[in-house]
Amino acid sequence: MKVEKISELTTNRMSVYLRCLNELAAEGTKTVSSETIAKRFHLNSAQIRKDLAYFGEFGVRGVGYYVEELCEHLTKILGLNKEHRVAIIGAGRLGTALTDYYGFTQSNFVVSALFDTDKNKIGQRVRDVIIYDIKDFDQVAKKDKIDVAVITVPAPFAQSILEQVTKAGIKAVMNFAPTPLRVEGTVKLKTVDLTISLESLSYFLAQPSNFNGKK
Amino acid sequence: MKVEKISELTTNRMSVYLRCLNELAAEGTKTVSSETIAKRFHLNSAQIRKDLAYFGEFGVRGVGYYVEELCEHLTKILGLNKEHRVAIIGAGRLGTALTDYYGFTQSNFVVSALFDTDKNKIGQRVRDVIIYDIKDFDQVAKKDKIDVAVITVPAPFAQSILEQVTKAGIKAVMNFAPTPLRVEGTVKLKTVDLTISLESLSYFLAQPSNFNGKK
Repeated sequence: MKVEKISELTTNRMSVYLRCLNELAAEGTKTVSSETIAKRFHLNSAQIRKDLAYFGEFGVRGVGYYVEELCEHLTKILGLNKEHRVAIIGAGRLGTALTDYYGFTQSNFVVSALFDTDKNKIGQRVRDVIIYDIKDFDQVAKKDKIDVAVITVPAPFAQSILEQVTKAGIKAVMNFAPTPLRVEGTVKLKTVDLTISLESLSYFLAQPSNFNGKK
Repeated sequence: MKVEKISELTTNRMSVYLRCLNELAAEGTKTVSSETIAKRFHLNSAQIRKDLAYFGEFGVRGVGYYVEELCEHLTKILGLNKEHRVAIIGAGRLGTALTDYYGFTQSNFVVSALFDTDKNKIGQRVRDVIIYDIKDFDQVAKKDKIDVAVITVPAPFAQSILEQVTKAGIKAVMNFAPTPLRVEGTVKLKTVDLTISLESLSYFLAQPSNFNGKK
């Protein structure tokens, strides 16, 4: 396995393939060709074969891929066979909405703690998840074996929260605060910046070629 | 302006620059060099100069950029000087959380309608925003001059919702459903796939090189 050379774009596509294969498995499909996957899910069959070949010889000539077996392989490659425990920092609307985001469960991520600084929120629960004082992050993270932090605090607080959670030993962080953050050491940071996505829509709408005569 | 050649990665960076410049303007900074922007916000100064040069001659030798003037230019380039009216389809937790997402307001996006199929939700309000029956999308979208749709329905319904909104003339769509969607015609689709981001964190954590001895 040439795992160390894999780009994030490749692993992103692996996630998509896994989702497609899970759907096929749920329908009872036993074997599938890259062409069928590509057609059904609007993907590129050559790309599928190339991506999967990075990780091993999964396809069988004349048969295609064994769906269930490939699901298991991809699940392991993506580390999804192991439960990840998530802390959400910032118990505002977005943080609480993410608490029962179905995508978490689907990918074996369990939200096990929320954190905030607001005395009125601390001690409350969102579904079954307790809102803790951010001061106790280190202690709760160790006790609850948290390995992923999700940052949903306002932008000006995001960098110091990132530093606090990485000091506590967290290696994987998803950031929703619309601000560039700097990580130190071997920490993986994914920023989900909705503002940037919105502005790329706005840019598109501002191009004269998209003028649809109604505006 | 070589606008037609601009990649999405470039416009994404323009969004980041605008945010940085707005922050500098709020602090009263009048002029700034690309080096100062880069240092302050953990960016690349050569990249900043190159990106901005695509859109015009904004920098002044020996002075740098006039902050307020550049903010205005970037705002126009990104089409943010014009208000965009947003419909959110799917009044679940994520959809309602997005209704007052501060990033929308910040970028001149106004959430003006929610849509759902649930009879118990239709007619209710989230803040001031009415939840309409999805059947009435076309009519409400025209009346409210909606130009952006945000899809927060479960994955199996996302494609048909996408088709419905594009038939109604919507040209810009942000999709949160974790499924690949197919667009037809000149429609800009941005998928925000939190599951993929999560799984790239999981992949990172699964690599032996990130084993930190504690697990």
